Amino acid sequence: MSFTPTDHYCLPARSGLGFDVATGDLIRITDLEGSQPVDFWAFNREDFYEFLSCEHTKPSIEKLYPRLGDSAYTNQRRAIVTVVEDNSPGQHDMQFAACDPTRYAELGFEGEHASCQDNLHKALEQVGIHWQFTPQPWNLFTNFFINPDATFTVKAPQTQPGDNIILRVEMIAYIVVSACPQDQNLTCGGNPSDIRVEVQRAKI
Amino acid sequence: MSFTPTDHYCLPARSGLGFDVATGDLIRITDLEGSQPVDFWAFNREDFYEFLSCEHTKPSIEKLYPRLGDSAYTNQRRAIVTVVEDNSPGQHDMQFAACDPTRYAELGFEGEHASCQDNLHKALEQVGIHWQFTPQPWNLFTNFFINPDATFTVKAPQTQPGDNIILRVEMIAYIVVSACPQDQNLTCGGNPSDIRVEVQRAKI
Repeated sequence: MSFTPTDHYCLPARSGLGFDVATGDLIRITDLEGSQPVDFWAFNREDFYEFLSCEHTKPSIEKLYPRLGDSAYTNQRRAIVTVVEDNSPGQHDMQFAACDPTRYAELGFEGEHASCQDNLHKALEQVGIHWQFTPQPWNLFTNFFINPDATFTVKAPQTQPGDNIILRVEMIAYIVVSACPQDQNLTCGGNPSDIRVEVQRAKI
Repeated sequence: MSFTPTDHYCLPARSGLGFDVATGDLIRITDLEGSQPVDFWAFNREDFYEFLSCEHTKPSIEKLYPRLGDSAYTNQRRAIVTVVEDNSPGQHDMQFAACDPTRYAELGFEGEHASCQDNLHKALEQVGIHWQFTPQPWNLFTNFFINPDATFTVKAPQTQPGDNIILRVEMIAYIVVSACPQDQNLTCGGNPSDIRVEVQRAKI
Protein backbone atom coordinates (compact mmCIF):
# COMPACT_ATOMS: atom_id res chain seq x y z
CA MET A 1 0.00 0.00 0.00
CA SER A 2 1.01 3.61 -0.41
CA PHE A 3 2.70 4.90 2.74
CA THR A 4 4.13 8.41 2.86
CA PRO A 5 5.25 9.19 6.40
CA THR A 6 4.87 12.68 7.77
CA ASP A 7 6.41 11.98 11.18
CA HIS A 8 9.57 9.98 11.88
CA TYR A 9 10.77 8.77 15.26
CA CYS A 10 13.84 6.72 16.11
CA LEU A 11 13.70 4.66 19.29
CA PRO A 12 17.20 3.82 20.50
CA ALA A 13 17.44 0.31 21.90
CA ARG A 14 15.73 -0.01 25.33
CA SER A 15 13.79 3.26 25.07
CA GLY A 16 10.11 4.20 24.81
CA LEU A 17 8.00 6.84 23.08
CA GLY A 18 4.49 8.30 23.39
CA PHE A 19 2.71 10.20 20.61
CA ASP A 20 -0.76 11.32 19.56
CA VAL A 21 -2.62 9.98 16.54
CA ALA A 22 -6.03 10.54 14.99
CA THR A 23 -8.55 8.35 13.23
CA GLY A 24 -7.28 7.26 9.83
CA ASP A 25 -3.59 7.82 10.61
CA LEU A 26 -1.23 5.00 9.68
CA ILE A 27 1.61 3.89 11.95
CA ARG A 28 4.53 1.91 10.53
CA ILE A 29 6.78 0.20 13.07
CA THR A 30 10.04 -1.19 11.70
CA ASP A 31 12.42 -3.64 13.31
CA LEU A 32 15.63 -2.12 11.88
CA GLU A 33 18.13 -4.85 12.76
CA GLY A 34 15.81 -7.85 13.18
CA SER A 35 14.86 -9.97 16.19
CA GLN A 36 13.60 -6.93 18.14
CA PRO A 37 10.15 -6.94 19.78
CA VAL A 38 8.10 -3.80 20.40
CA ASP A 39 5.70 -3.45 23.31
CA PHE A 40 2.68 -1.52 22.01
CA TRP A 41 -0.07 0.28 23.96
CA ALA A 42 -2.94 2.44 22.67
CA PHE A 43 -5.21 4.65 24.80
CA ASN A 44 -8.38 6.51 23.86
CA ARG A 45 -7.06 10.09 23.96
CA GLU A 46 -10.37 11.33 25.41
CA ASP A 47 -10.61 8.69 28.16
CA PHE A 48 -7.35 6.97 29.05
CA TYR A 49 -9.23 4.26 30.99
CA GLU A 50 -10.31 2.94 27.60
CA PHE A 51 -7.23 1.23 26.20
CA LEU A 52 -6.13 -1.61 23.95
CA SER A 53 -6.86 -4.82 25.84
CA CYS A 54 -5.51 -8.21 24.86
CA GLU A 55 -8.18 -10.08 26.82
CA HIS A 56 -10.94 -8.19 25.01
CA THR A 57 -9.30 -8.48 21.61
CA LYS A 58 -9.01 -12.28 21.70
CA PRO A 59 -12.73 -13.09 22.12
CA SER A 60 -13.65 -10.38 19.58
CA ILE A 61 -11.42 -11.86 16.85
CA GLU A 62 -11.49 -15.46 18.17
CA LYS A 63 -7.73 -15.69 17.58
CA LEU A 64 -4.65 -15.67 19.83
CA TYR A 65 -3.59 -12.31 18.34
CA PRO A 66 -4.52 -10.03 15.43
CA ARG A 67 -3.29 -10.85 11.94
CA LEU A 68 -3.60 -9.00 8.65
CA GLY A 69 -7.05 -7.39 8.48
CA ASP A 70 -7.82 -7.88 12.19
CA SER A 71 -8.24 -5.09 14.70
CA ALA A 72 -7.04 -4.82 18.26
CA TYR A 73 -9.88 -3.86 20.59
CA THR A 74 -10.20 -1.78 23.74
CA ASN A 75 -11.68 -2.80 27.08
CA GLN A 76 -14.88 -1.18 25.72
CA ARG A 77 -14.68 -3.73 22.85
CA ARG A 78 -14.13 -1.03 20.22
CA ALA A 79 -11.48 -1.29 17.51
CA ILE A 80 -8.53 1.01 18.24
CA VAL A 81 -6.01 -0.09 15.57
CA THR A 82 -6.20 -2.44 12.58
CA VAL A 83 -3.39 -4.41 10.92
CA VAL A 84 -3.44 -3.15 7.31
CA GLU A 85 -0.05 -4.48 6.26
CA ASP A 86 2.31 -6.99 7.87
CA ASN A 87 5.78 -7.35 6.42
CA SER A 88 7.01 -9.67 9.17
CA PRO A 89 6.58 -13.34 10.15
CA GLY A 90 3.31 -12.16 11.76
CA GLN A 91 3.95 -13.27 15.35
CA HIS A 92 2.51 -10.64 17.71
CA ASP A 93 1.98 -12.09 21.17
CA MET A 94 -0.99 -11.26 23.41
CA GLN A 95 0.03 -13.53 26.33
CA PHE A 96 2.83 -11.94 28.33
CA ALA A 97 3.10 -8.89 30.59
CA ALA A 98 5.60 -6.10 29.93
CA CYS A 99 9.05 -6.72 31.38
CA ASP A 100 9.55 -4.88 34.67
CA PRO A 101 12.18 -4.58 37.42
CA THR A 102 10.72 -7.63 39.22
CA ARG A 103 11.04 -9.74 36.07
CA TYR A 104 14.72 -8.86 35.73
CA ALA A 105 15.33 -9.74 39.39
CA GLU A 106 13.43 -13.02 38.82
CA LEU A 107 15.75 -13.82 35.91
CA GLY A 108 18.82 -13.19 38.06
CA PHE A 109 19.81 -9.66 37.01
CA GLU A 110 21.16 -7.48 39.81
CA GLY A 111 20.86 -3.69 39.79
CA GLU A 112 18.79 -1.27 37.74
CA HIS A 113 17.59 -2.33 34.30
CA ALA A 114 15.48 -0.51 31.72
CA SER A 115 12.04 -2.08 31.26
CA CYS A 116 9.01 -1.75 29.02
CA GLN A 117 6.87 -1.10 32.11
CA ASP A 118 9.03 1.88 33.10
CA ASN A 119 9.03 3.13 29.50
CA LEU A 120 5.22 3.02 29.48
CA HIS A 121 4.85 4.93 32.73
CA LYS A 122 7.36 7.60 31.65
CA ALA A 123 5.34 8.12 28.45
CA LEU A 124 2.07 8.26 30.40
CA GLU A 125 3.50 10.77 32.88
CA GLN A 126 4.33 13.06 29.98
CA VAL A 127 0.59 13.47 29.41
CA GLY A 128 -0.30 13.69 33.09
CA ILE A 129 -1.32 10.08 33.68
CA HIS A 130 0.02 8.54 36.89
CA TRP A 131 -1.28 5.00 37.24
CA GLN A 132 -0.59 2.38 39.85
CA PHE A 133 -1.28 -0.45 37.41
CA THR A 134 0.13 -1.45 34.03
CA PRO A 135 -2.10 -2.53 31.15
CA GLN A 136 -0.89 -5.57 29.24
CA PRO A 137 1.03 -4.63 26.08
CA TRP A 138 0.57 -6.06 22.64
CA ASN A 139 3.97 -7.63 21.98
CA LEU A 140 4.77 -7.01 18.30
CA PHE A 141 7.42 -9.19 16.58
CA THR A 142 7.70 -11.58 19.53
CA ASN A 143 8.09 -15.34 19.49
CA PHE A 144 6.66 -16.58 22.77
CA PHE A 145 6.03 -19.97 21.27
CA ILE A 146 3.11 -22.08 22.56
CA ASN A 147 4.03 -25.76 22.47
CA PRO A 148 1.45 -28.47 21.73
CA ASP A 149 1.37 -29.35 25.46
CA ALA A 150 0.25 -25.75 26.31
CA THR A 151 3.63 -24.72 27.71
CA PHE A 152 5.56 -21.69 26.47
CA THR A 153 9.08 -21.41 25.11
CA VAL A 154 10.60 -17.93 24.78
CA LYS A 155 12.30 -18.04 21.38
CA ALA A 156 14.21 -15.36 19.47
CA PRO A 157 11.96 -13.35 17.10
CA GLN A 158 12.03 -14.49 13.50
CA THR A 159 12.00 -10.92 12.15
CA GLN A 160 14.67 -9.88 9.64
CA PRO A 161 16.18 -6.37 9.40
CA GLY A 162 13.56 -4.02 7.96
CA ASP A 163 10.53 -6.15 8.79
CA ASN A 164 7.59 -3.95 9.68
CA ILE A 165 3.89 -3.72 10.42
CA ILE A 166 1.42 -0.96 9.44
CA LEU A 167 -1.52 -0.19 11.71
CA ARG A 168 -4.47 2.04 10.88
CA VAL A 169 -5.73 4.12 13.79
CA GLU A 170 -9.47 3.76 14.51
CA MET A 171 -9.97 6.48 17.17
CA ILE A 172 -8.14 9.51 18.56
CA ALA A 173 -5.44 7.79 20.55
CA TYR A 174 -2.23 8.13 22.52
CA ILE A 175 0.22 5.46 21.41
CA VAL A 176 3.13 4.18 23.49
CA VAL A 177 5.83 1.96 22.03
CA SER A 178 8.85 0.47 23.80
CA ALA A 179 11.89 -1.14 22.17
CA CYS A 180 12.02 -4.07 24.58
CA PRO A 181 15.27 -4.11 26.62
CA GLN A 182 15.01 -7.78 27.57
CA ASP A 183 18.57 -9.17 27.43
CA GLN A 184 18.21 -11.87 30.07
CA ASN A 185 16.54 -14.41 27.79
CA LEU A 186 15.85 -14.86 24.07
CA THR A 187 12.94 -12.35 23.84
CA CYS A 188 15.15 -9.98 21.78
CA GLY A 189 17.46 -12.67 20.47
CA GLY A 190 19.92 -11.65 23.20
CA ASN A 191 20.60 -8.21 21.70
CA PRO A 192 18.13 -5.32 22.14
CA SER A 193 18.26 -2.97 19.14
CA ASP A 194 16.70 0.16 17.62
CA ILE A 195 13.18 0.60 16.29
CA ARG A 196 11.81 3.12 13.77
CA VAL A 197 8.29 4.49 14.03
CA GLU A 198 6.67 6.53 11.25
CA VAL A 199 3.23 8.09 11.06
CA GLN A 200 1.29 9.05 7.96
CA ARG A 201 -1.22 11.65 9.10
CA ALA A 202 -4.65 11.44 7.52
CA LYS A 203 -5.07 15.20 7.97
CA ILE A 204 -2.09 17.53 8.22
CA MET B 1 -6.40 -33.96 51.12
CA SER B 2 -8.18 -33.16 54.34
CA PHE B 3 -10.57 -30.26 53.88
CA THR B 4 -12.81 -29.13 56.74
CA PRO B 5 -14.59 -25.93 55.75
CA THR B 6 -15.26 -23.28 58.34
CA ASP B 7 -17.10 -20.88 56.00
CA HIS B 8 -19.76 -21.79 53.45
CA TYR B 9 -21.14 -19.53 50.73
CA CYS B 10 -23.72 -20.30 48.06
CA LEU B 11 -23.58 -18.22 44.90
CA PRO B 12 -26.92 -18.29 43.10
CA ALA B 13 -26.55 -18.44 39.33
CA ARG B 14 -25.36 -15.11 37.84
CA SER B 15 -24.23 -13.60 41.17
CA GLY B 16 -20.89 -12.60 42.68
CA LEU B 17 -19.23 -12.63 46.10
CA GLY B 18 -16.25 -10.95 47.79
CA PHE B 19 -14.56 -12.28 50.94
CA ASP B 20 -11.35 -11.95 52.92
CA VAL B 21 -8.79 -14.72 53.31
CA ALA B 22 -5.42 -15.07 55.00
CA THR B 23 -2.21 -16.89 54.20
CA GLY B 24 -2.64 -20.64 54.48
CA ASP B 25 -6.43 -20.62 54.08
CA LEU B 26 -7.89 -23.10 51.61
CA ILE B 27 -10.70 -22.18 49.20
CA ARG B 28 -12.81 -24.90 47.60
CA ILE B 29 -14.95 -23.84 44.64
CA THR B 30 -17.53 -26.36 43.49
CA ASP B 31 -19.48 -26.45 40.25
CA LEU B 32 -22.69 -27.89 41.74
CA GLU B 33 -24.58 -28.75 38.54
CA GLY B 34 -21.72 -28.99 36.04
CA SER B 35 -20.76 -26.90 33.02
CA GLN B 36 -20.57 -23.68 35.09
CA PRO B 37 -17.50 -21.41 34.89
CA VAL B 38 -16.39 -19.15 37.74
CA ASP B 39 -14.61 -15.86 37.18
CA PHE B 40 -11.97 -15.55 39.91
CA TRP B 41 -10.06 -12.46 41.11
CA ALA B 42 -7.63 -12.09 44.02
CA PHE B 43 -6.30 -8.79 45.43
CA ASN B 44 -3.56 -8.16 47.97
CA ARG B 45 -5.69 -7.01 50.92
CA GLU B 46 -3.03 -4.45 51.91
CA ASP B 47 -2.60 -2.95 48.41
CA PHE B 48 -5.45 -3.60 46.00
CA TYR B 49 -3.31 -2.48 43.06
CA GLU B 50 -1.44 -5.73 43.49
CA PHE B 51 -3.76 -8.40 42.08
CA LEU B 52 -3.79 -11.76 40.35
CA SER B 53 -2.61 -11.14 36.80
CA CYS B 54 -2.96 -13.64 33.98
CA GLU B 55 -0.25 -11.98 31.90
CA HIS B 56 2.23 -12.19 34.77
CA THR B 57 1.25 -15.75 35.71
CA LYS B 58 1.84 -17.19 32.24
CA PRO B 59 5.55 -16.24 31.92
CA SER B 60 6.17 -17.25 35.55
CA ILE B 61 4.81 -20.78 35.08
CA GLU B 62 5.53 -20.98 31.32
CA LYS B 63 2.07 -22.48 30.77
CA LEU B 64 -1.24 -21.20 29.36
CA TYR B 65 -2.84 -21.48 32.84
CA PRO B 66 -2.02 -22.99 36.25
CA ARG B 67 -2.47 -26.68 36.83
CA LEU B 68 -2.13 -28.85 39.93
CA GLY B 69 0.81 -27.55 41.96
CA ASP B 70 1.11 -24.27 40.06
CA SER B 71 0.47 -20.84 41.53
CA ALA B 72 -1.29 -17.85 40.05
CA TYR B 73 0.86 -14.72 40.35
CA THR B 74 0.17 -11.05 40.92
CA ASN B 75 1.33 -8.11 38.80
CA GLN B 76 4.22 -7.93 41.31
CA ARG B 77 5.07 -11.53 40.23
CA ARG B 78 4.31 -12.95 43.69
CA ALA B 79 2.25 -16.10 44.20
CA ILE B 80 -1.24 -15.26 45.51
CA VAL B 81 -2.99 -18.66 45.28
CA THR B 82 -1.79 -22.19 44.48
CA VAL B 83 -3.76 -25.10 43.02
CA VAL B 84 -3.46 -27.82 45.69
CA GLU B 85 -6.24 -30.09 44.42
CA ASP B 86 -8.15 -30.18 41.14
CA ASN B 87 -11.17 -32.45 40.89
CA SER B 88 -12.22 -31.17 37.48
CA PRO B 89 -11.07 -31.62 33.87
CA GLY B 90 -8.48 -28.94 34.71
CA GLN B 91 -9.39 -26.32 32.08
CA HIS B 92 -8.96 -22.87 33.65
CA ASP B 93 -8.64 -20.21 30.95
CA MET B 94 -6.34 -17.20 31.18
CA GLN B 95 -7.22 -15.71 27.76
CA PHE B 96 -10.59 -13.97 27.90
CA ALA B 97 -11.93 -10.84 29.62
CA ALA B 98 -14.90 -10.96 31.99
CA CYS B 99 -18.27 -10.72 30.30
CA ASP B 100 -19.71 -7.20 30.46
CA PRO B 101 -22.72 -5.26 29.14
CA THR B 102 -20.87 -4.50 25.88
CA ARG B 103 -20.20 -8.20 25.29
CA TYR B 104 -23.89 -9.04 25.66
CA ALA B 105 -24.80 -6.27 23.21
CA GLU B 106 -22.10 -7.60 20.83
CA LEU B 107 -23.70 -11.05 21.01
CA GLY B 108 -27.14 -9.61 20.17
CA PHE B 109 -28.76 -9.41 23.62
CA GLU B 110 -31.00 -6.39 24.14
CA GLY B 111 -31.62 -4.87 27.58
CA GLU B 112 -29.89 -5.27 30.94
CA HIS B 113 -27.96 -8.45 31.64
CA ALA B 114 -25.98 -9.56 34.69
CA SER B 115 -22.23 -9.75 34.03
CA CYS B 116 -19.05 -10.90 35.75
CA GLN B 117 -17.64 -7.39 35.32
CA ASP B 118 -20.57 -5.86 37.23
CA ASN B 119 -20.32 -8.58 39.89
CA LEU B 120 -16.63 -7.73 40.38
CA HIS B 121 -17.22 -4.01 40.75
CA LYS B 122 -20.10 -4.54 43.21
CA ALA B 123 -17.81 -6.72 45.35
CA LEU B 124 -15.00 -4.15 45.14
CA GLU B 125 -17.34 -1.31 46.09
CA GLN B 126 -18.25 -3.21 49.26
CA VAL B 127 -14.67 -2.67 50.43
CA GLY B 128 -14.43 0.92 49.19
CA ILE B 129 -12.68 0.29 45.87
CA HIS B 130 -14.10 2.25 42.92
CA TRP B 131 -12.06 1.49 39.83
CA GLN B 132 -12.51 2.64 36.26
CA PHE B 133 -10.79 -0.46 34.89
CA THR B 134 -11.38 -4.20 35.22
CA PRO B 135 -8.54 -6.65 35.84
CA GLN B 136 -8.67 -9.82 33.75
CA PRO B 137 -10.27 -12.72 35.64
CA TRP B 138 -8.96 -16.24 35.92
CA ASN B 139 -11.75 -18.25 34.29
CA LEU B 140 -12.10 -21.47 36.30
CA PHE B 141 -13.85 -24.48 34.69
CA THR B 142 -14.00 -22.84 31.24
CA ASN B 143 -13.48 -24.43 27.85
CA PHE B 144 -12.32 -21.64 25.55
CA PHE B 145 -10.67 -24.13 23.26
CA ILE B 146 -7.57 -23.12 21.29
CA ASN B 147 -7.56 -24.83 17.91
CA PRO B 148 -4.33 -25.92 16.19
CA ASP B 149 -4.62 -22.90 13.83
CA ALA B 150 -4.54 -20.51 16.85
CA THR B 151 -8.24 -19.66 16.65
CA PHE B 152 -10.62 -20.06 19.60
CA THR B 153 -13.85 -22.00 19.87
CA VAL B 154 -16.10 -21.31 22.88
CA LYS B 155 -17.18 -24.80 23.98
CA ALA B 156 -19.35 -25.90 26.92
CA PRO B 157 -17.31 -26.70 30.04
CA GLN B 158 -16.56 -30.38 30.57
CA THR B 159 -17.17 -30.19 34.33
CA GLN B 160 -19.60 -32.65 35.91
CA PRO B 161 -21.84 -31.87 38.93
CA GLY B 162 -19.66 -31.62 42.04
CA ASP B 163 -16.38 -30.98 40.24
CA ASN B 164 -14.23 -28.65 42.29
CA ILE B 165 -10.83 -27.02 42.73
CA ILE B 166 -8.99 -26.25 45.98
CA LEU B 167 -6.69 -23.22 46.14
CA ARG B 168 -4.25 -22.40 48.93
CA VAL B 169 -3.98 -18.70 49.74
CA GLU B 170 -0.43 -17.31 49.69
CA MET B 171 -0.98 -13.76 51.05
CA ILE B 172 -3.68 -11.79 52.88
CA ALA B 173 -6.18 -11.32 50.08
CA TYR B 174 -9.63 -10.20 49.05
CA ILE B 175 -11.19 -12.80 46.77
CA VAL B 176 -13.99 -12.13 44.29
CA VAL B 177 -15.83 -14.93 42.51
CA SER B 178 -18.64 -14.66 39.98
CA ALA B 179 -20.91 -17.44 38.77
CA CYS B 180 -20.72 -16.47 35.11
CA PRO B 181 -24.14 -15.44 33.70
CA GLN B 182 -23.17 -15.96 30.05
CA ASP B 183 -26.22 -17.46 28.35
CA GLN B 184 -25.64 -16.06 24.86
CA ASN B 185 -23.08 -18.70 23.83
CA LEU B 186 -21.75 -22.02 25.15
CA THR B 187 -19.52 -20.54 27.91
CA CYS B 188 -21.89 -21.99 30.57
CA GLY B 189 -23.27 -24.74 28.38
CA GLY B 190 -26.28 -22.50 27.75
CA ASN B 191 -27.54 -22.67 31.34
CA PRO B 192 -25.90 -20.56 34.12
CA SER B 193 -26.14 -22.36 37.46
CA ASP B 194 -25.15 -22.14 41.14
CA ILE B 195 -21.67 -22.34 42.66
CA ARG B 196 -20.57 -23.27 46.18
CA VAL B 197 -17.56 -21.67 47.84
CA GLU B 198 -16.08 -22.98 51.09
CA VAL B 199 -13.12 -21.73 53.08
CA GLN B 200 -11.00 -23.66 55.53
CA ARG B 201 -9.39 -21.05 57.78
CA ALA B 202 -5.79 -21.73 58.78
CA LYS B 203 -6.36 -19.80 62.01
CA ILE B 204 -9.80 -19.36 63.52
